[in-house]
Amino acid sequence: MFYINEGFLNLQHSYLFDTVSKKIEDFQKKNPDKKVIKLGIGDVTRPLAPAVIQAMHKAVDELSKSETFKGYGPEPGYGFLRKAVAENEFKGLGIKPNEVFISDGIKSDTGNMCDLFDKNVKVAIMDPVYPSYLDANIEEGRGGKFNKETGMYEDIIYMHISSENNFVPELPKEIPDIIYLCFPNNPTGTVLTKEQLKKFVDYARENKSLIMFDAAYEGFIQDENIPHSIYEIEGAKEVAIEFRSFSKTAGFTGVRCAACVVPEELYGYTKSGEKVSMNKLWASRISAKFNGASYISQRGAEAVYSEEGQKQIKENIKYYHENGKIIMDGLKEAGFTVFGGENSPYIWLKIPGNLSSWEFFDELLEKAGVARSSRKWIRPIW
Amino acid sequence: MFYINEGFLNLQHSYLFDTVSKKIEDFQKKNPDKKVIKLGIGDVTRPLAPAVIQAMHKAVDELSKSETFKGYGPEPGYGFLRKAVAENEFKGLGIKPNEVFISDGIKSDTGNMCDLFDKNVKVAIMDPVYPSYLDANIEEGRGGKFNKETGMYEDIIYMHISSENNFVPELPKEIPDIIYLCFPNNPTGTVLTKEQLKKFVDYARENKSLIMFDAAYEGFIQDENIPHSIYEIEGAKEVAIEFRSFSKTAGFTGVRCAACVVPEELYGYTKSGEKVSMNKLWASRISAKFNGASYISQRGAEAVYSEEGQKQIKENIKYYHENGKIIMDGLKEAGFTVFGGENSPYIWLKIPGNLSSWEFFDELLEKAGVARSSRKWIRPIW
Repeated sequence: MFYINEGFLNLQHSYLFDTVSKKIEDFQKKNPDKKVIKLGIGDVTRPLAPAVIQAMHKAVDELSKSETFKGYGPEPGYGFLRKAVAENEFKGLGIKPNEVFISDGIKSDTGNMCDLFDKNVKVAIMDPVYPSYLDANIEEGRGGKFNKETGMYEDIIYMHISSENNFVPELPKEIPDIIYLCFPNNPTGTVLTKEQLKKFVDYARENKSLIMFDAAYEGFIQDENIPHSIYEIEGAKEVAIEFRSFSKTAGFTGVRCAACVVPEELYGYTKSGEKVSMNKLWASRISAKFNGASYISQRGAEAVYSEEGQKQIKENIKYYHENGKIIMDGLKEAGFTVFGGENSPYIWLKIPGNLSSWEFFDELLEKAGVARSSRKWIRPIW
Repeated sequence: MFYINEGFLNLQHSYLFDTVSKKIEDFQKKNPDKKVIKLGIGDVTRPLAPAVIQAMHKAVDELSKSETFKGYGPEPGYGFLRKAVAENEFKGLGIKPNEVFISDGIKSDTGNMCDLFDKNVKVAIMDPVYPSYLDANIEEGRGGKFNKETGMYEDIIYMHISSENNFVPELPKEIPDIIYLCFPNNPTGTVLTKEQLKKFVDYARENKSLIMFDAAYEGFIQDENIPHSIYEIEGAKEVAIEFRSFSKTAGFTGVRCAACVVPEELYGYTKSGEKVSMNKLWASRISAKFNGASYISQRGAEAVYSEEGQKQIKENIKYYHENGKIIMDGLKEAGFTVFGGENSPYIWLKIPGNLSSWEFFDELLEKAGVARSSRKWIRPIW
């Protein structure tokens, strides 16, 4: 009789974005004439940059001729893209192409990387944050008992951020093995300064913890003093894996291409105290369970770094920033308290009155036809 | 201190195809003028079908305009493709679109699906077979001690196939929880009849085991009596997951698109004896750790089922079959004993004399400039 991994049964809620879709679907069934403005999921709307389109057409053409046809590519990504990411995304930070791994998305990377850790590692996540880090770890059986009162899993360390701590998470008192950080933060739109981020790097070095740093939104940073990469902090290569994506900066949510950096200096530990290269461990996982991202997507991603590509994606980012500013200014004028926006496409709103997050979701959808995101495990205020 | 999953350290050999590449690379460094004929990895060489190329150009164009732009798609795949796979690949077998999940490849699917099972499930694999099922399970910590004498892991059940048993694996005496079957078999090119496959389905039903059925090469079946899908066997939906790929039939090894079927009738078990829907469990894994295959790849895959698409890919398959026949006839004429070929692109050769598999690999490369595949854990004969 084959037993399942019962960690899956511990997952209390259906995935956040599925719930949001379901609510919108129900609303539209009841109100077929109303147009819903969907702000629920961090998706892009602008078409791809012409340089990317051109590169992908060219890649498709290559696949149409024997002389230029491409079969299996290198599992960790084509050399041309690993090099382009190292040189462009991490300029001056000494990241080597063999430390860059190409995949189909950050959700895959952060999820699949759970394989590399001991089943019983202690996980810390920000609250609120992009929900898939939590869900992936619950499925791995790392959640412990779910507490219905608090809406939290007892074995997870939650690092709360809110206006009360200026959206800067405190260093956890109980020491975690794996710390997920997401900056610019999804969904609050807030950032950390170098000094604030350095505290986490120092803490991880001191405690031999691993930081999983999701920088999906770094392309939206406008403030010159905000770090784009965790590797701008001294010693971070010893303790951090960084995730980058073409989804938000270049509109690749449907094309699927991302990159992560696993530095050669980064080591995990066996129970008997041996050091193990995380770069080699990840390469081994990829070799056994992945066959590389689509060639067409990888050629499209490469074109993001061309001169025209850079100009064009910056125009798109400017467009999203302008949209954000319109929403932000409007909400402020209407008397709301708002955060984020400047270094991120996300805006975070203080919910008025005593409504819970989902109550406000329902009210906004019913009355204004606007669907926003929500964080179920956050209790009242937001 | 963060501990790693020590299952990874139990993996004895680097991934087979990496070893093959390394040997070719070394040979070419020493012999820069010699041309190597690479038969080492089951890759395609023919360009994509014009119908696929056209569909992918169209998809790229859609991404270039606001009105037709596509962001995040449904995580388990677009409805158009799930439906097309259900109706075309499983015609008459009653497979529903919501039982079909689209991904970037079978290697990802069979590897990622390891998440769904209890850590201690007992795994049976064919020997020889596509190596990633084994490697993925070793990394999950299911291998037990590696026996250097036999080249085998002590906790894995090996189901040997060779000319001695007509390439039909015996039903294992020790009952496995998970049984990996690959037919038409990679690498022997041999197949099972309905009656032979039925024995496995009945065995799995009787013992509540799960069959992971890899049918990547079903498009190459020419013999009318050979089943294309395990669901042609009565009761298989209760015990089997089937994997399909566009890689070999339609040349998608660089494009990346595959499908798997997880029937609604299939249940796993908790330790307390409850039944759990595997379809829901897999959907939950996808929701937490995957964001769908590339839109462009999915549109390309859909075009495989158009009238022209079907005609064109059948031309390609015919071409590979002809190549196979030339090799097969030549080897037979030269006095070798060969198997496979008819229902598969693979040909399996009885190694002459007492050479081991890798010794023959080296000799063939050195003397003839031909690189073939090898199976390290197979002892002498092949």
